[in-house]
Amino acid sequence: MKVVIIGAIAAGSKAASKLNRLRPNWEIVIYSNEKNIAYSECGMPYYIAGYINDINNLIVRTPKEFRKKGINVNICHKVLNINPSKKELLVKNLNTNEIFTTGYDRLIIATGAVPYVPYFENNFLDNIFTLRTLEDGMAVKNAVLQSNNAVILGGGYIGIEVLEAMVQQKLNVTLINSNDYIMQVFDKDMSETIQKQIYMKSLENVKILNNDTIISCHGKNKVEKVITKNGHEINTDMVLIAAGIVPNVELAKNAGVEIGQTGAIKVNSRMQTNIKDIYACGDCAEKRHIVADAPCWIPLGSTANKEGRCCAINVADMYDEFEGVLGSAVTKYFNYTMSLTGLNEKKAISYGFEPISVVVKKNDKAGYMPDVQTIVIKLIADKTSHRILGAQGLGLGEVDKRINALTSALLSKMTIEEFYDDDITYAPPFSTSIDPMLTATQNLLHKLSSL
Amino acid sequence: MKVVIIGAIAAGSKAASKLNRLRPNWEIVIYSNEKNIAYSECGMPYYIAGYINDINNLIVRTPKEFRKKGINVNICHKVLNINPSKKELLVKNLNTNEIFTTGYDRLIIATGAVPYVPYFENNFLDNIFTLRTLEDGMAVKNAVLQSNNAVILGGGYIGIEVLEAMVQQKLNVTLINSNDYIMQVFDKDMSETIQKQIYMKSLENVKILNNDTIISCHGKNKVEKVITKNGHEINTDMVLIAAGIVPNVELAKNAGVEIGQTGAIKVNSRMQTNIKDIYACGDCAEKRHIVADAPCWIPLGSTANKEGRCCAINVADMYDEFEGVLGSAVTKYFNYTMSLTGLNEKKAISYGFEPISVVVKKNDKAGYMPDVQTIVIKLIADKTSHRILGAQGLGLGEVDKRINALTSALLSKMTIEEFYDDDITYAPPFSTSIDPMLTATQNLLHKLSSL
Repeated sequence: MKVVIIGAIAAGSKAASKLNRLRPNWEIVIYSNEKNIAYSECGMPYYIAGYINDINNLIVRTPKEFRKKGINVNICHKVLNINPSKKELLVKNLNTNEIFTTGYDRLIIATGAVPYVPYFENNFLDNIFTLRTLEDGMAVKNAVLQSNNAVILGGGYIGIEVLEAMVQQKLNVTLINSNDYIMQVFDKDMSETIQKQIYMKSLENVKILNNDTIISCHGKNKVEKVITKNGHEINTDMVLIAAGIVPNVELAKNAGVEIGQTGAIKVNSRMQTNIKDIYACGDCAEKRHIVADAPCWIPLGSTANKEGRCCAINVADMYDEFEGVLGSAVTKYFNYTMSLTGLNEKKAISYGFEPISVVVKKNDKAGYMPDVQTIVIKLIADKTSHRILGAQGLGLGEVDKRINALTSALLSKMTIEEFYDDDITYAPPFSTSIDPMLTATQNLLHKLSSL
Repeated sequence: MKVVIIGAIAAGSKAASKLNRLRPNWEIVIYSNEKNIAYSECGMPYYIAGYINDINNLIVRTPKEFRKKGINVNICHKVLNINPSKKELLVKNLNTNEIFTTGYDRLIIATGAVPYVPYFENNFLDNIFTLRTLEDGMAVKNAVLQSNNAVILGGGYIGIEVLEAMVQQKLNVTLINSNDYIMQVFDKDMSETIQKQIYMKSLENVKILNNDTIISCHGKNKVEKVITKNGHEINTDMVLIAAGIVPNVELAKNAGVEIGQTGAIKVNSRMQTNIKDIYACGDCAEKRHIVADAPCWIPLGSTANKEGRCCAINVADMYDEFEGVLGSAVTKYFNYTMSLTGLNEKKAISYGFEPISVVVKKNDKAGYMPDVQTIVIKLIADKTSHRILGAQGLGLGEVDKRINALTSALLSKMTIEEFYDDDITYAPPFSTSIDPMLTATQNLLHKLSSL
């Protein structure tokens, strides 16, 4: 049995390793158009910040290590075409430009996602970057180390994480964000708190321009100035485009693989596409949102790993299901943690819920402990059913702990009344005697019952 | 309407405050045999350690603050007798020795728990302490500051927390533990890991003697030497008895209030006892274990606060239920965190389950992050039903985060298969792409399916 895997960053490499463990005698072939496989994209901002010195630390497993296990790894090989009826691939060796045909019995598409780059004038200038591959990471870090001023386009996870990295490396940074608030996965009220905190932590070095975008770049060879839609002229040594990513599905689409309403490859819970023996997993695949019970596209490393594993089990003629995602996520700006799970209010409305929410500000541990911090928790439930829809947490303290306490409640579709009985761990160095998430629950219960 | 509350540390003071907010015109009277009310017992080890300098910081609300709200607080008043048929109390003013009778319409018993002190010879010597009241805390800290050597009897939460405090204050400590392993809330395998870590962190200053107890103390006025059952003679400047606590129920028992099989006051989910208009809450009250669906007695500050709140709502002629506890807890030894929820294997067997468990050792965050730590997770499920029964976590990293992710899964009686789909937050500074708790879930699922 020959299994070909296209792409091997998170989902693809996980699928290869798992399948190799389950079926050591099967032929497993990886084609990747990159030089590196099996690396942590999510770790690159911390490399750029200088917290990690050697970019090789981000590599989970080298091609050599895969080959030792008997996996046939082909880096710098671009798959040009999939022919499902012949079960054949057209592949180009990017080093030799040789093009060849190869067969498969089962195919795993793990082509990931690619940066979305909005058009602006002179976008070809040097020192304008995106951040997706390990090579991107090295290039961005080199530029950061030689720059005093930078512009970031985009206020999502990557934008904020690289903002920290650049401030840590002593740059002055202008973050341009086309939306009316940064970190759109949060609700606007929470986003405003985030923006305030970013300014509090780095007012002199950071400027955030919301509702704006780049219309042109200027410079001789290298970018030297950015002009924005709202007329700002910003002198800069470099530009990072972090305006979002889109699923990389051209290859699949051209082969007749069905694309879902989110623009990603449609798969069932076993990671099977509409075409027999073709599977997809990771950032190129659509996911099911468990809370919304609807398709969604939330590309994350954790999900990619789980899908890669699930995919391998099913390809191996065994049985596993990936039920979907809750939209759980966490990131940080220096020691300020931002975490969420489930639906935000905007999303909840779009899925037909009637969200009712409360926001609670509370100590993260007993008020008398020397390192006490304030955290903010927003908890959202449906007005009619009282079902919990999601939560968002912000603060210097352990915010993600509270968000994770809610994840399995979302999984089992608990109401606020049911979650009210949750027994969250308490000791003075860890929480308040009634945990902030339970205070939010009490407040929301009160609000719902008084409607 | 006159409501009398006996005892006001956690549950009693919470009930008073809540009832006062709900029924500002009702007469609320507190009788406490202590000088202080509404303080954090759980905070005392951190005061002894010197992390908190002023013991007054542990006081949540002073009698004066309660009185400002119109609550009639009587400190140093011991209730000698409850007469339910006459709805009367016999009370002794401990300052004046005056004894008087007073009536109530509704009564809340929140008499808490008292230290269990096993008998040994010369137990009357000076510098032998228990740690329960704020006065105890001050006395223990004073002694610690004047001591070089100490003995702790008991290897539970208080024993371990005061051990940290004493080591932090540069004492040499012998911890004598009558059981065959410390921290009995954990399983033996996990306890052995805890003991190793305690030695690793403080080998020169700490000696742990399991399966031993104090048979006599010796000294002129002050304790100078301890002799143990196994024949150890230990020179010491002080002894702390932390051999457990027992519910303080004599008053209730004498009044005909029903005592449950655990020795604590039997209450329903509305905190009502068997006698009309008599309620009980906090450490003196029995709880329902949600996982075991059986009575239990797990006295904790978090539970006391919830019960006090629930009790006040019901006393106020409104409706609230306290469903019970999951057995969730957390503590630390310096930066080593120990946390658990649900049933341990021993308890699970005693409740008729057939526990199957796995232990996972894994990084708490991405392996390339500079502050990565190893954590240990033990996950337990029932062999037949696959229902999750509990989890225990240990480590320098954020262990309690993983335990809390499981609490609502226990609440909704999830199986391992159902929890497998949990979407725990991931980013390199916060977790591994597949969280250690999910790795434990995968391993346990594998183990269960191969049985």
